[in-house]
Amino acid sequence: MSKQKVLILGGGYGGIVTAQRLQKKLHYNEAEITLVNKHDYHYITTELHQPAAGTMHHDRARVDINDLLNTKRVNFVQDTVVSINTEEKKVQLENGEQEYDHLVISLGSEPETFGIEGLKENAFSIRSINSVRYIREHIEYMFAKYKNEPEREDYLRFVVGGAGFTGIEFVGELADRLPKLCKEFDVDPERVKIINIEAAPTALPGFDPELVEYAMDVLRKKGVEFKIDTPIKECTPEGVVLADGEEIKAGTIVWTGGVRGNSIVENAGIETMRGRVKVDEYLRAPGFEDIFVVGDCALIINEEINRPYPPTAQMAIQMAMNLSLNLVAVVRGQPKLLRQFQPEIKGTVASLGKGEAIGIVGKKKIFGPIASLMKKIIDLRYLFIIGGIPLVLRKGRF
Amino acid sequence: MSKQKVLILGGGYGGIVTAQRLQKKLHYNEAEITLVNKHDYHYITTELHQPAAGTMHHDRARVDINDLLNTKRVNFVQDTVVSINTEEKKVQLENGEQEYDHLVISLGSEPETFGIEGLKENAFSIRSINSVRYIREHIEYMFAKYKNEPEREDYLRFVVGGAGFTGIEFVGELADRLPKLCKEFDVDPERVKIINIEAAPTALPGFDPELVEYAMDVLRKKGVEFKIDTPIKECTPEGVVLADGEEIKAGTIVWTGGVRGNSIVENAGIETMRGRVKVDEYLRAPGFEDIFVVGDCALIINEEINRPYPPTAQMAIQMAMNLSLNLVAVVRGQPKLLRQFQPEIKGTVASLGKGEAIGIVGKKKIFGPIASLMKKIIDLRYLFIIGGIPLVLRKGRF
Repeated sequence: MSKQKVLILGGGYGGIVTAQRLQKKLHYNEAEITLVNKHDYHYITTELHQPAAGTMHHDRARVDINDLLNTKRVNFVQDTVVSINTEEKKVQLENGEQEYDHLVISLGSEPETFGIEGLKENAFSIRSINSVRYIREHIEYMFAKYKNEPEREDYLRFVVGGAGFTGIEFVGELADRLPKLCKEFDVDPERVKIINIEAAPTALPGFDPELVEYAMDVLRKKGVEFKIDTPIKECTPEGVVLADGEEIKAGTIVWTGGVRGNSIVENAGIETMRGRVKVDEYLRAPGFEDIFVVGDCALIINEEINRPYPPTAQMAIQMAMNLSLNLVAVVRGQPKLLRQFQPEIKGTVASLGKGEAIGIVGKKKIFGPIASLMKKIIDLRYLFIIGGIPLVLRKGRF
Repeated sequence: MSKQKVLILGGGYGGIVTAQRLQKKLHYNEAEITLVNKHDYHYITTELHQPAAGTMHHDRARVDINDLLNTKRVNFVQDTVVSINTEEKKVQLENGEQEYDHLVISLGSEPETFGIEGLKENAFSIRSINSVRYIREHIEYMFAKYKNEPEREDYLRFVVGGAGFTGIEFVGELADRLPKLCKEFDVDPERVKIINIEAAPTALPGFDPELVEYAMDVLRKKGVEFKIDTPIKECTPEGVVLADGEEIKAGTIVWTGGVRGNSIVENAGIETMRGRVKVDEYLRAPGFEDIFVVGDCALIINEEINRPYPPTAQMAIQMAMNLSLNLVAVVRGQPKLLRQFQPEIKGTVASLGKGEAIGIVGKKKIFGPIASLMKKIIDLRYLFIIGGIPLVLRKGRF
């Protein structure tokens, strides 16, 4: 009897943690575990807003996959997933093909443009090392260009679309970063503008209003201008057009307005809502015994408020921990050992730049330096989960 | 009797050294000395190829003018010269006007495009802090863009037009810099190309052939491709078209092919050749007793070879030293004390990047680490001339 094939697509939190747990729990003879990832590194999605703004080097936000996995137990394939064939149980890669008995889809999210014209072509998004390095360089480039065309004040205008979690965290870093770039490029800080635009009636939708107010106060003091309850109608190479017709010319537009699941999942014939799969209690795609979905592509409803849990690292890791147990049960043919997934949200902390943050821990609201410290602890905890003490020491910020 | 007005246009080597000598030699009551400069800093033109490539921070290549002049003796005006009215003895600035009794034109050079179409619009030039900061950022930006559009290999192609002194020095730095950017942006160094194109039948025209060969060898080993005896016909947003019709697509084109005098001088009705004034033996513009020209705008023929001396920092400083003596004589009404300018070329050293250089010192050819050391000594000497030991310690590289 040949070994069962467990194929994991994507090396984000969901994929890496699943692979790590499996390599410990399953015996060499029980299964062949393969992880496919586009890059030879895992990146720390929760920190990407910092290298995007340029307040942290991108190398601190990524880890070599070889350092995270025991490559004697997990077969690592650096390749890009093209499509999933659920009937033949095969996955087409750009440079090859992989078969599976059990498939784990942990492909992460894509930016959701909500049909806003020109957004995909003209706005940056915070989604990978390549994309944040591009944003960082683009921001600097705008300063250099402005010094050679001083009539182009739009080069110094930075529009951030979306004031949700990522938008607010990015804006906080950007507000810390731009004064430094003003010094580097001899630019009068008065000329620089950050405009954060949100279609919803509030920034940080879903957060406690007191925390939202605190966050906006902190950011306003750093010079951020908010336009809340203001949908963007169109994005052009010159800037954005708002729903009321106002045009804001800007050299940089970063879109953080929302994410959706992965189009590869949609194209595989799996039922999705905006690319996300409403998984069953064992994290399986509906109708497929052999396909599990974790991370941003998995949709789970929070019954208390009848809304989906937001896609977070916290959720991805909890799913992966549950899934790894269930995969062991499945591989060993012990379906009675399957455990239902039950998320346990421990809290949420949003950074507002250096030394400032807001959050909920348990039921408690936290602000300012304490929240900022808590944010760092959470970041260190994620490092610990995937890489133990050595990774904490190597990549952690203290 | 009102004090005589000495007006110096431009704070490069010529202008700064003239102002510095005058503030020492002339008594407060004898003359009012004014220096007009676009920026509140002087930049070290001979080092600009380094911040352009990104191998040195641009702050090391500039000095606050306030640190160089005694502003109680020299009136510093930060403004841009618009035009010179030789009849009314007035200089129009963007934000004002200045009168003069004695005018010193030390406005520096402009890139000479030799009528090559599209060059001005599509090529960078190494001419100021703003322009080199722009080049540095543009180079980095090309790497970031490439990582997001990997089919665009032209982003990784760097064309340097001109293999004269500046071109060769820049190419040397660029060849040192790009491998570092490959690491920073995860780019395979094999994909990166530096192409140095020269219309003349040799690189470094006017240099000793043995030195030229050595320089090209060093640079070829660093990966530079040369196209000598190859005129550029056209420059486009996509790259360059050579005289033979070949098109080289490149994301970055830096033009170092030549300089000309300043168009402000041409427009003032002063006789010029490509913007340079063929000055008399006292560095006066022909036909003007009250206008002196030093630095890149002054044209002096080397009788030995019947060709103009190339515009260098060495020449500008020697001219300024001579001029300051002659201005004292003129201000004091002692025309018999005027001294003829006699250039004394002590040598020329061209850097080829880290640890490598070529040059002539006296009549002796020098190569490699010794030439590189000599280059550093020359740079330190320039710092010493304009700012003494304190500036050497602050900006010098040892």
